[in-house]
Amino acid sequence: MEKIEKITQIAKKRGFVFPSSEIYGGLSGTYDFGPIGFLLKKKIIDFWREFFIKSEDNIFEIETSLIMPEKVFEASGHLKGFIDPITKCKKCKNVFRADHLIEDSTKMFVEGMGPEELTKIIREKNIRCPKCGGELEDVKVFNLMFQMNVGALGDTKGYLRPETAQGIFVNFKNVLVSTRAKLPFGIAQIGKSFRNEISPRQWLIRLREFTQAEIEFFINPEEKKFEKLKDYENVKIRILSREAQKEGKPEEEMSVREALEKVIIPSEYMAYFIAKEQLFYESLGIPKEAIRFRHMLQEETPHYSKGNVDMEILFDFGWKEVVGNAYRSDYDLKKHVEYSKEDLSYVFEDGKKIIPHVIEPSFGIERTIYAVLLYSFIEDKERGWDWFKFVPKIAPISVAVFPLLNKEEMINKSLEIFKNLRKEFDVIFDKSGSIGKRYARADEIGIPYCITVDYQTLEDESVTIRDRNTTKQERVKIEELSTKLKNLLNL
Amino acid sequence: MEKIEKITQIAKKRGFVFPSSEIYGGLSGTYDFGPIGFLLKKKIIDFWREFFIKSEDNIFEIETSLIMPEKVFEASGHLKGFIDPITKCKKCKNVFRADHLIEDSTKMFVEGMGPEELTKIIREKNIRCPKCGGELEDVKVFNLMFQMNVGALGDTKGYLRPETAQGIFVNFKNVLVSTRAKLPFGIAQIGKSFRNEISPRQWLIRLREFTQAEIEFFINPEEKKFEKLKDYENVKIRILSREAQKEGKPEEEMSVREALEKVIIPSEYMAYFIAKEQLFYESLGIPKEAIRFRHMLQEETPHYSKGNVDMEILFDFGWKEVVGNAYRSDYDLKKHVEYSKEDLSYVFEDGKKIIPHVIEPSFGIERTIYAVLLYSFIEDKERGWDWFKFVPKIAPISVAVFPLLNKEEMINKSLEIFKNLRKEFDVIFDKSGSIGKRYARADEIGIPYCITVDYQTLEDESVTIRDRNTTKQERVKIEELSTKLKNLLNL
Repeated sequence: MEKIEKITQIAKKRGFVFPSSEIYGGLSGTYDFGPIGFLLKKKIIDFWREFFIKSEDNIFEIETSLIMPEKVFEASGHLKGFIDPITKCKKCKNVFRADHLIEDSTKMFVEGMGPEELTKIIREKNIRCPKCGGELEDVKVFNLMFQMNVGALGDTKGYLRPETAQGIFVNFKNVLVSTRAKLPFGIAQIGKSFRNEISPRQWLIRLREFTQAEIEFFINPEEKKFEKLKDYENVKIRILSREAQKEGKPEEEMSVREALEKVIIPSEYMAYFIAKEQLFYESLGIPKEAIRFRHMLQEETPHYSKGNVDMEILFDFGWKEVVGNAYRSDYDLKKHVEYSKEDLSYVFEDGKKIIPHVIEPSFGIERTIYAVLLYSFIEDKERGWDWFKFVPKIAPISVAVFPLLNKEEMINKSLEIFKNLRKEFDVIFDKSGSIGKRYARADEIGIPYCITVDYQTLEDESVTIRDRNTTKQERVKIEELSTKLKNLLNL
Repeated sequence: MEKIEKITQIAKKRGFVFPSSEIYGGLSGTYDFGPIGFLLKKKIIDFWREFFIKSEDNIFEIETSLIMPEKVFEASGHLKGFIDPITKCKKCKNVFRADHLIEDSTKMFVEGMGPEELTKIIREKNIRCPKCGGELEDVKVFNLMFQMNVGALGDTKGYLRPETAQGIFVNFKNVLVSTRAKLPFGIAQIGKSFRNEISPRQWLIRLREFTQAEIEFFINPEEKKFEKLKDYENVKIRILSREAQKEGKPEEEMSVREALEKVIIPSEYMAYFIAKEQLFYESLGIPKEAIRFRHMLQEETPHYSKGNVDMEILFDFGWKEVVGNAYRSDYDLKKHVEYSKEDLSYVFEDGKKIIPHVIEPSFGIERTIYAVLLYSFIEDKERGWDWFKFVPKIAPISVAVFPLLNKEEMINKSLEIFKNLRKEFDVIFDKSGSIGKRYARADEIGIPYCITVDYQTLEDESVTIRDRNTTKQERVKIEELSTKLKNLLNL
């Protein structure tokens, strides 16, 4: 069995991830987080918040609604441009991405072509349904946003946001006024986004409902230097340049400063975030070799962009974007000024007004979880069971408390310890089955430390702490447990 | 100006709550949380989690998707029953709740009547449009769920969940198997729910997109005693009985044990949650007199319910439900068994199988925020500005650090203190304007403690701590700040 199949099986069995509404056959592209997966997701998000927001002076987090009115997406361009070209088989009724079909069967590069052009190629090259060989319908465009009617009259169109970013842009002025922030500053949002993907696939990768963590970092475009970069400019990253992509060469290691000098990273502000992304994913336990930054090709980059750099992770199926970094210039704010007629400018102390530029690091949380599960999974023949080597900071459960035997005194002592530790840690109590079985279960959900209460505990108030990674045990006094665990877990 | 108008103005000006997509005229029934409101909401949710989940042994939190397939709501009854009767004015095209219109103009009780009956009454009593006097169309039913098409074929119907509860019920088996939980146990979920209300109103009260915190507590219906109640049975609550409602009498104070004995609360498990709700809202700063539990009338209670008790808070506009407590029996699980054909039973150690009953406490988070803002708001003529007396636990920002004067040494020292405190607290640094102005701004967002760096600080490493409630100041050594603040904030 493939590693990822084992992981998805354990994920379901042990309460990480369930297919959504599974008892009704599910809804493809949506997943539910069980008790363990919920905690893993929460801890990754909490750590992200600590790393990217709390450690900064001037990044403000907001939470905006998921349903937004049509005007927002008219302004942002999503109504016209957030589309996939699709074609349906006349015979089997399956729907396909027309551009992918053509690219797969002809190796032509058709990105950006309109539906008429794509239809023409399908007809000329006689491309047929890959499932049943049937004839294909004319290419149509399909908007990836979920639309719904708001209100009983049915005449107000609402859309589920396809990215958290627009909630930030429409609130730019409100946040600016209420915080009195000075450039550069950021507005962040963590939350759900929705895309009606034609073919959701690869487990937690291509989803219809997913969680993003985005920062819009507003800057003065005249101010090229970012003081705070100096602490991070020597961070080493692996870069896949445009040349390397065209020539089929591998990525190269360099410092973010070098990537800036080579004009692969378009701004010191973006360099700052890129360096922090590298460090963040390393802290989550993703190996350096599995992280690269890809300079997006000219043809992949929107016309208004001053440079896009994707952070990709090497998954079991290949490299995939997990964080997108975009220098979106003043495009979004200007569009909203145009459509809303509101003044969204920033006023300097000398009275000068500008529309700030924006650097956007955008993180996919479910893809991050996938990567964490993949790189934390240990197939352990020797131990006799597989387990997750989560770094302590994000382990869903930090500590397990076991009575060695099913004896009242040991159970009571264990419960007492459990209840005390619960105030400070995510901890479980388990008394069922042999101690070996309980270690196995704890390892399967990646609990870093197991505490066992035994005969000696009842005599001298000491317990054993077992280390998940080494399986080594150490005796510790109960009164020192909390401090000891905080050190071990690096909390 | 009314108190609540002042609150909504400060809420917008200081970054608590903004109308959603405001620059486009908003989308009624949706609001965005600004930087301060986001923190307030987050802290209320964190405190809820600590109070209702972390302190228990056996309540598991999950996170399920917001879009769910039609089958789920066919089973749960929402497709047929989650409807409002509406009528449209032929002249001005406004839409109204037909039952409310009739009740308002005739004082008849029409709850539960079908569209034909309601139409008949409108015709017989010649009820006309309250806005323009126009003729009303026949009554139709309007489903409150937001529907959308999933997938490119458009033939899969999805709905935004109208409550977080169904995500729990469809995952009952998955959670049970993965946690090996024993009855009684709970599954909790905190997240967004959606209702396409005809007329959203009262600021954060009747929303189209809102946040719920729900627990489904699964019990063995044969097991009437709940051991854990003993710690809470003497908690005093104010009860509005069915008799009192019919006779127009006020609520009476009694212990939860008495309310159980009078069969107002239908189960010891529900009594346990009700007592905790009382304590939770008191801890949020809501006065005892502003909290009551209303035994819902027979005609308000669903046929499958074994008793519903709403926790209501006295708002500026009257009493309103903030927490619903429902003894839903085995209704939901049985319906899902029927429609999904899956076995959702619980198996005891002796092999006996049952469908558990469920007690559901369901909390409205935005309504809680409204209540907290209302009861924390202090109109202070003496001080010269209004402020929020948030309890320290949920204050959005816990500490502010100010340099007394705009002098480099004081600024640097303040920044050093700020950066140190930031690791442990939500803290801001502010150097602009007079110290009085900064105190006023801090009070307006309810910061409990302000620290000021002055000349003496530069000499003896001490600062002043100002108490928001009393405005009294105290000198503290910088090295003792962290410990001192933890005590003051009760963290």
